[in-house]
Amino acid sequence: MTREDAAKLSPADLRKAMADGLWLDTTVGLGLGYLHTNVAILPEKYAFDFLLYCVRNPKPCPVIHVSEPGDPIINTVSAGSDIRDDISRYCVFEKGELVATPTSLRDYWRPDAVTFLLGCSVTFEQALINNGVPMRHHAQGSTPGVYITDIPCAPAGQFAGPVVASVRAIPGHLVSRAVEVTSRYPWGHGSPLHIGDPSLIGVDLSKPDYGDVPVFEEGDVPVFWGCGVTPQLALSEAKPEYMFSHYPAHMYVADVTSDNVPR
Amino acid sequence: MTREDAAKLSPADLRKAMADGLWLDTTVGLGLGYLHTNVAILPEKYAFDFLLYCVRNPKPCPVIHVSEPGDPIINTVSAGSDIRDDISRYCVFEKGELVATPTSLRDYWRPDAVTFLLGCSVTFEQALINNGVPMRHHAQGSTPGVYITDIPCAPAGQFAGPVVASVRAIPGHLVSRAVEVTSRYPWGHGSPLHIGDPSLIGVDLSKPDYGDVPVFEEGDVPVFWGCGVTPQLALSEAKPEYMFSHYPAHMYVADVTSDNVPR
Repeated sequence: MTREDAAKLSPADLRKAMADGLWLDTTVGLGLGYLHTNVAILPEKYAFDFLLYCVRNPKPCPVIHVSEPGDPIINTVSAGSDIRDDISRYCVFEKGELVATPTSLRDYWRPDAVTFLLGCSVTFEQALINNGVPMRHHAQGSTPGVYITDIPCAPAGQFAGPVVASVRAIPGHLVSRAVEVTSRYPWGHGSPLHIGDPSLIGVDLSKPDYGDVPVFEEGDVPVFWGCGVTPQLALSEAKPEYMFSHYPAHMYVADVTSDNVPR
Repeated sequence: MTREDAAKLSPADLRKAMADGLWLDTTVGLGLGYLHTNVAILPEKYAFDFLLYCVRNPKPCPVIHVSEPGDPIINTVSAGSDIRDDISRYCVFEKGELVATPTSLRDYWRPDAVTFLLGCSVTFEQALINNGVPMRHHAQGSTPGVYITDIPCAPAGQFAGPVVASVRAIPGHLVSRAVEVTSRYPWGHGSPLHIGDPSLIGVDLSKPDYGDVPVFEEGDVPVFWGCGVTPQLALSEAKPEYMFSHYPAHMYVADVTSDNVPR
């Protein structure tokens, strides 16, 4: 299936194509307008502390869905969707080490597995585009610079670590608009966590920890949003016996639109 | 101390007066502009399910603070405040039964007690007044009608039950404004959960489950918000070994203003 064909599928059909092994690539440009999420699946005994960590750090870790232990069905945002099949590629970690990148979790599932769906940047990027704020990195064919800041997360139990932020170059006269628009999407990282001088949050724009070096045009301001890498770092430090996540850029795509997330 | 004098105190001084036994009455009209919260304190083993229940039902149960087990200090919204002293009167429940209404929790505290601060209607009522939406029940010297609706909460573990809503009579031309204003305060029950025909949510306005029968003026529309009685009902059904709460209308008053709640 070409990406052009995949982009025409409804979220339910796209997830079925993933489950059937017909689409195993990234979700970039797919399920346009629908909610994409980060995914973290971990043992029940870590679930309270991780949920508390997310609640205490809502910009990087916006909670959209938390399952009952062992229940792989995501009914809140997609009727009958099975998280074990409905992502194109997964990461499997054991004690913080990546041990496999399967296209299904059927062989790895555990009876005490609690699934967390957390908001992702696809939501706010699309909202910004819809509201006239350009995404420079789209035009440049690059990915946003992602930085480990010197802002600490509010810890909870064994979950702690720095806030990770992604940057976008926003034309100065549209920065206010960008705040207005993204503040309407708390489930999509919400409003920016920093605007302006990157050094104030311990960031050197020329040295991203992930992604590409951002390119600024005349009059652009660096604007930073919370990033889904934040909980991934905290999880890799906490080293649970097992943890499953989506593979980078292979997001969970829900039936609800980015605007219509149950709250 | 007269209520007029108490109303002049800063939140920190008001809490000290409560801790010292100098103010043991309700918080109605006190700490104006500051964050007031509902309080639920329960054993650690219930904490994940209760937090999940709150996250799944954010309108009636907006989470503001969750403590570490056994830690009575509320630093997030009030520096150094001790939840065992800083409320004027408490309810102590054992297996869902009210067994005491002390003015301190010092004699009841447990090493596994997890404190939840949940948003309350003081926040959105003040925001409505500040934005020109009258609160009819203030002028009438009554309390809002509170109703057990036929809307079910999203359950989590042993926590379940109906959504409880409070009603206010809002002039028709201000209903849209009321939604705009309160949607800015998700930590204060957020936007209304129902507007108009009460029978559609199983409510007979003439028969409140708590509070007073609302009085409508010509052109008023009934507008319903999530209510902090919702988690109290769920907790009383779950019957944990122990549970502490604020005594009705004796709220926790924080140092932060209603506008400046950490998120």
